[in-house]
Amino acid sequence: METTATPPSLKPEDGYELWLRYRLLPSHDQFKISQIVCNESSDPLLSAAVAELQRGLEAMLGHRPEFSPVVTQDHALLLQPSQVYPGALAHLTLNHEAFAYLPKRAEERQSHTISASSSRGVLYGAFWFLRQLQMGTAFPQTLTVSAPSYSLRMVNHWDNLNRTVERGYAGQSIWDWHKLPDYIDPRIIDYARANASIGINSVVLTNVNANSMVLRSDTIVKTRAIADVLRPYGIKVFLTSRFSAPEELGNLTTSDPRVPDVQQWWCKKVSEIYDQIPDFGGFLVKANSEGQPGPQSYGLSHAEGARVIADALAPFGGVLLWRAFVYDDQIPVDRAAQAYAEFKPLDGLFQENVFVQVKNGPIDFQPREPFSPLFGAVDETSLVMEVQATKEYLGFASHLAYLGTMWEEVLKTPTQQRPAELVLHTIKGVAGVSNIGSDRNWCGSHFDQSNWYALGRLSWDPTQEAREIANEWVSLTFGSDVTDPIVSIMMRSREAVVDYTGPLGLTHLMATGHHYGPGPWVNDLDRADWNPTYFHRANKDGIGFDRVASGTIQQYAAGWQILWGDPKTTPENLLLWFHHLPWSYELKSGRSVWEELVYRYSRGVAEVKAIRQEWSHLTSKVDPDRFTQVAEFLKIQEKEALWWRDASLAYWQSLNGLPYPEGFDPPQMPLEYYQGITHPFAPGNTHTG
Amino acid sequence: METTATPPSLKPEDGYELWLRYRLLPSHDQFKISQIVCNESSDPLLSAAVAELQRGLEAMLGHRPEFSPVVTQDHALLLQPSQVYPGALAHLTLNHEAFAYLPKRAEERQSHTISASSSRGVLYGAFWFLRQLQMGTAFPQTLTVSAPSYSLRMVNHWDNLNRTVERGYAGQSIWDWHKLPDYIDPRIIDYARANASIGINSVVLTNVNANSMVLRSDTIVKTRAIADVLRPYGIKVFLTSRFSAPEELGNLTTSDPRVPDVQQWWCKKVSEIYDQIPDFGGFLVKANSEGQPGPQSYGLSHAEGARVIADALAPFGGVLLWRAFVYDDQIPVDRAAQAYAEFKPLDGLFQENVFVQVKNGPIDFQPREPFSPLFGAVDETSLVMEVQATKEYLGFASHLAYLGTMWEEVLKTPTQQRPAELVLHTIKGVAGVSNIGSDRNWCGSHFDQSNWYALGRLSWDPTQEAREIANEWVSLTFGSDVTDPIVSIMMRSREAVVDYTGPLGLTHLMATGHHYGPGPWVNDLDRADWNPTYFHRANKDGIGFDRVASGTIQQYAAGWQILWGDPKTTPENLLLWFHHLPWSYELKSGRSVWEELVYRYSRGVAEVKAIRQEWSHLTSKVDPDRFTQVAEFLKIQEKEALWWRDASLAYWQSLNGLPYPEGFDPPQMPLEYYQGITHPFAPGNTHTG
Repeated sequence: METTATPPSLKPEDGYELWLRYRLLPSHDQFKISQIVCNESSDPLLSAAVAELQRGLEAMLGHRPEFSPVVTQDHALLLQPSQVYPGALAHLTLNHEAFAYLPKRAEERQSHTISASSSRGVLYGAFWFLRQLQMGTAFPQTLTVSAPSYSLRMVNHWDNLNRTVERGYAGQSIWDWHKLPDYIDPRIIDYARANASIGINSVVLTNVNANSMVLRSDTIVKTRAIADVLRPYGIKVFLTSRFSAPEELGNLTTSDPRVPDVQQWWCKKVSEIYDQIPDFGGFLVKANSEGQPGPQSYGLSHAEGARVIADALAPFGGVLLWRAFVYDDQIPVDRAAQAYAEFKPLDGLFQENVFVQVKNGPIDFQPREPFSPLFGAVDETSLVMEVQATKEYLGFASHLAYLGTMWEEVLKTPTQQRPAELVLHTIKGVAGVSNIGSDRNWCGSHFDQSNWYALGRLSWDPTQEAREIANEWVSLTFGSDVTDPIVSIMMRSREAVVDYTGPLGLTHLMATGHHYGPGPWVNDLDRADWNPTYFHRANKDGIGFDRVASGTIQQYAAGWQILWGDPKTTPENLLLWFHHLPWSYELKSGRSVWEELVYRYSRGVAEVKAIRQEWSHLTSKVDPDRFTQVAEFLKIQEKEALWWRDASLAYWQSLNGLPYPEGFDPPQMPLEYYQGITHPFAPGNTHTG
Repeated sequence: METTATPPSLKPEDGYELWLRYRLLPSHDQFKISQIVCNESSDPLLSAAVAELQRGLEAMLGHRPEFSPVVTQDHALLLQPSQVYPGALAHLTLNHEAFAYLPKRAEERQSHTISASSSRGVLYGAFWFLRQLQMGTAFPQTLTVSAPSYSLRMVNHWDNLNRTVERGYAGQSIWDWHKLPDYIDPRIIDYARANASIGINSVVLTNVNANSMVLRSDTIVKTRAIADVLRPYGIKVFLTSRFSAPEELGNLTTSDPRVPDVQQWWCKKVSEIYDQIPDFGGFLVKANSEGQPGPQSYGLSHAEGARVIADALAPFGGVLLWRAFVYDDQIPVDRAAQAYAEFKPLDGLFQENVFVQVKNGPIDFQPREPFSPLFGAVDETSLVMEVQATKEYLGFASHLAYLGTMWEEVLKTPTQQRPAELVLHTIKGVAGVSNIGSDRNWCGSHFDQSNWYALGRLSWDPTQEAREIANEWVSLTFGSDVTDPIVSIMMRSREAVVDYTGPLGLTHLMATGHHYGPGPWVNDLDRADWNPTYFHRANKDGIGFDRVASGTIQQYAAGWQILWGDPKTTPENLLLWFHHLPWSYELKSGRSVWEELVYRYSRGVAEVKAIRQEWSHLTSKVDPDRFTQVAEFLKIQEKEALWWRDASLAYWQSLNGLPYPEGFDPPQMPLEYYQGITHPFAPGNTHTG
C-alpha cells in the first residue's frame, strides 16, 4: 500500500492494474469496514469475493477487514448468498446473477449488506461495491438492485495455439499453451478478476478461424487448467470447434453431420471435454466463411450443420454459438446482404441451445455501419451481438477510439419491426472480440482498456449511456479529477476515426491483409467482394453503393426502407452506404459530396490534432508514464489520420478530377506515393486457415 | 524507494529489474556520497553514467547525490573521463573502454574517483561501482583497474521483423518494428542499461536467418531510432544482411558479388545506413547455410563473398561478422567437420574488417561439445566465439540451466596449438544469441537472466570463474543471504541437463523443428545430417560417432588427437562424441556403456529432483512470486527430465535389447508412446527462410 505524500496518480503507472487500482482514498479515515461477514466459507466464488474485498478495502481505506462467519463488530459488510433478503428486500426475487445492496443502517450495527440469490451475485456485488468506493467519496447511500440484461456476456479471443493473435495489437496471447497445464501465469487470475469486475461470465479461448487441434486431448487438459482458474470468478470457458475436426483430428473420411461416425465423434469429444470441465460453456463455430469448412460442403444449411454439434452439447447443458458472418464461394451482388439472406430463412430451425452470433453491422466491424438487419427480423432464433473490441478497422492500438459510443449507437437503434423495440431488445447476449494480450497494459494502449471495460458494462446493462461508462472508466483508471477533459476526448474519438477513414457512410476502404492504413484503390484481390472498389463503387461520375437497387434495403423494416430509401432522408453519416450519388450532389451543408468528403476527412484530422492538444494539458494530472505513452500514440494517430485523409482524397480526386475546395490543403504527396506504401510486418495478420 | 520494515527481498518481485535492483542497503546510514562531480556534462555517455549513479545511490543509500561540475563537499564521487589520472594512476594508460577506481582517501576530501580515458570507460566504471555497493557492505576499498579482454562484446538477437523470435522462449521481440520510429518503448532504455551494466557494447537486432527487408529504407529509419536510444549506453547496432538482398530488395538480376551493379548496391545501401546511423556497427551474415543464399551459389568462397560487403563497410569503419556455421547441399561424412573444412583453407583471405563468427562447438550449441577446431587453427583470421544464451537445446525457458559453466569449459580449454594457449586467447570477441524478449522478466524465466549476465561478464573478462559470476548474479538478483544454496544449484544445473538429455558425449538427439523434447529415433528428415540417428549411429551392437575413422579428429592439435584418439584416454563426457563403442564396453566405473547411460540419465533426473528439493527450502528467503515461478518451472523440469530419460532409454533399449540394470526403473511407458508425442505449438520455431 502506498502511503507517500505525492498524489498517487502521479506515480508512474504501467496500466497493468486496469480499472482495479484501489488507490488510498483521500478521505480514507472517514470510512470504516471492520469485518466481512458471510456464513458460508467454502464456496470458491464467495472466497474470491471476500479476497477481492479485503484487497480493495485494505488498499483504499488503509486497514484490512477480517473475515468472520458472524457479525461481531459495528461497520461490518455482510455478504448474503441466499434467497432470504433482509429488510426492504424481503419480497424481492433476484435472478441468479443479480445482487442487491443495502446501505448501512443504524439499527443493524452500522452494517452494509450485499445480497444475492447466488455466490455469483455476491461476487458481482462485491466488485460493484468496490467500484462505488473507488469512484465516490462515501459509501453508497441508496438501496441498489442490479441484474444483468443478458445471460451471455462474453469475450471472444481470436488467439491461436502458437500464441499469435489474429487482429491482436497487444502482444502475444495470454494463454501459454506450451507451458499449460503445468504452469499457470498469475496474470490469468488478474484477467479473471478484471472480467468478473465488469460482469463478463464467458470467454472463448481460441480463434474463430479454428484449428482442429483446439480439440486435441492435450489441449483439453490445458483448457481445464484455465477453466479451473476462471471458475471462482464466475467465468465459463468455451472453445472454437472446426467443422472438419472429425476428419482432421478424428481420422474419419468425412465430416458430414449425417454420418453416424461423425455424430459419434462429436458426442465422444464433447463427453471428453465435460469429463475434464464439468461446467464447460460450449463451442463457437465459424462455418462456410473465409475458407472455414462447414455444412454447405455437404449441401446442408447452417441449421442442419449446427444440429450435430448442438445435440452433442445439449445433454451437458452446453451452448453452441454459430456465427452469422458468412460468405460462400459465390460472389454476391451485395456482401452486406449475406448474413440475413442465409439466416433469415433458417429462423426456427436451430435447436434451443444454439445462439446465432451476429456482427453489429452487416459487413465487418467497420467504423460505422447500420445495424445488422437480422436484429429484430427473427422470431425463433436466439441472437448474440458480436462486437469487436480490438480495433482492426479503427487504428489498431495506437489510435485513440472509444467504442462505447459506437456500440451504444447500434444497441439503441429502433428496429422498427415492433413498437419501441431497440436492437438491444433483440439479443440474448453480447460477445466482444478481445483486445487483450500479454502487453504489460493488457490492451496495447491505455485507452483500449476502456473498450474492454465498456464491453463488460454494456453486456450487463445495454441501456447505460456510453458517456456514463466512460466517466466511470476514467474515474477508476485516471482519477476523478480528470474525468471531464478525458471523457470529452473519448466521446469525440470514434467519430474522428470515421471522419478520417470513411465519412458519409463509406466503408471497407483499408489496405489488404493486415488492414493497416488506407487502400481505397485496391481492386485486384482474388474475390471481387474483398476489394474496397466493390464497396465504394466510385468512378468519375459518383460514389457510393446503391442498396436500394441491390434490394438489400428490403432486409430492413418498412420504416427504415422509407427513411433510407431516399437520399434526402437518409442520415448523412450513412448516405453513401445506401446510395450511389454524383460527386456534385448537394448536401444539407450546401457542399457537394466531393466538397463534403474533403471537409469531413479534414475535420477528422483536425479533431485528432485538437485531442492531442487537449491531452497535452493533462501533463500534471496524469502520471508521467501513461501520459507520455498516450501523447506519443496521439502523435502517431495525427500522422496516420493525415495519411488516411491524403491518400483517400488523392484517390477520389484521381477519379473525379475535381479541384480541391478552397481553404483545404491538397494531399501532400501524389497518389502513387500512397499506393506504393507497404507495411509487410504490420501486426495482427495471422490467419491460420 | 522502499522504506518498509519487511525485508525488501520478500516483497513480490516480477524480475523486470534484473540485476539492477538497487535495494536500500541495510547499513545505508553508514555510507555517504554527497555529490557526483564531473567537469564535462554534455557527453551523453557521461550523462547516462551520472543518471544511473543518482538512481542507484538514491535507492541504495537513501539520499540522492546532486551533480556538480566541481567538488564542493566531502564524500564526492569524481568521474574523470580524461587521460590524466590522479595519484597512484598517474602513469597508467587505459584502453578506451577501461576504467580505474580509486577508493576514497582522507587527503582528498574523502572523494572516490572513477577514471577512464573515455566517457564509455566512466560508464562502465559507474556500473561497476554500483555493483560493488549492491553486493558489498562497504565502498570498495582497493584500487581497481578493469579493462575488457575483447573489443566485441555482443548480443545477437534472432528477432524477425514480425516480432517472432527464432528460438525465443520469452515472448515477442522487444523491437516493435510496427510502431518504430514513432514510439520508443521505455523498456528499450532499460535494455540498454542492463547491457551496459555488464559491458555489452554491440547488438545485432535481427535474425541471422535474414529477411532482405531488414535493409529496406524504412527499416533503417526504424533502426536509427533504436540506435539513438542505445548510443548513450555505449552500444552499437548491427543488422543481419541477406546475401541475396541486391536481387530481392534492389531488383537486380543477380547478387553475384563480381557484378559492378551488385557492388554499387552494397555501397549505396551501406552509405544510406551510415547517413542515418554514423556509428553503425556493421552486418552479421549467415551465408550458404540452412537455405540462406551465399557466394557458393556463384562458385565463390566465403572469403570472396564477404569481400563485397566488407569493402562497402570499410570506409565507414563498419565490421562484417561472417558466420562459420555452414553446411552446403552435399551431405557430409561428418557435419562436425564442416566449419573447419570450409574456413581453415580461407585463413588470410578475409579483409581486416571481417570477423568470422564460430560457434563454441563444432555442431550446434549442444549441451556438451568439444571446442570448435577452428579456435587456435587460424592465424590471420579474426574469430568471434558465438554462444547461445537462449536455451534451444537445454530445456527452453522452463529448465534451470546456468550456462556460465558451459562457456567457461570451452573458453578455458587449451587448444594445444601453442603453449599455454586457451581457446579464450584465440578470439577477438564473444557473441551471445539472445534469450531476451518482451516477457516481464525479460528472459522467460528468472534463472535465464543469469545467462544474459554471464554472457556480458565473460565477454568482459573470459578468465573469470563461472562460479564467481554466479555468485555476483545471485547476490544482485536474490540477495547475498541466499548465494550459497542458489549458486550450488546453478553450478550443478548444466551437467544435470547433459545427463538427462545426452550423456557420455551423445549429441543432437532432440525432436524435429521446435527441438522440444527427445527424438533420438528420428530418421526420416530430408537431409541425413538433420537426423539424430546420423549423430548417434546407434545399432544393436553399439553407439557413438567414430570421428577417428571419419578423420575429423585430425582437425585438432596433435595433443588432442592423441588424447581423444583412444577411447581409454578420451574423457568420458565426450566418449561417444569421438568413438563408436560396443554397448558392453567397460567404463572406469566398471559399468558397461549401456549401464552407464542408464546410470547417467537417471542421475540427471535425480539431480533435478534434488535441486527442486533444495529450492523448496528457500521459501522464506526468496520473494513469493519469483519463488513460486521457479518452483513451478522446476516441477516442469523434473517431469521433462524423466520424459527425456525414459524416451531415450526406451529407444536405446529397443536397439540393444539389453536388460535394465538392477536398481534402475525401466521407462514408464513403451517406446511407441514417446514416439507418438507431438507438440505442434512448441515455441521458438519461426524460421523465416
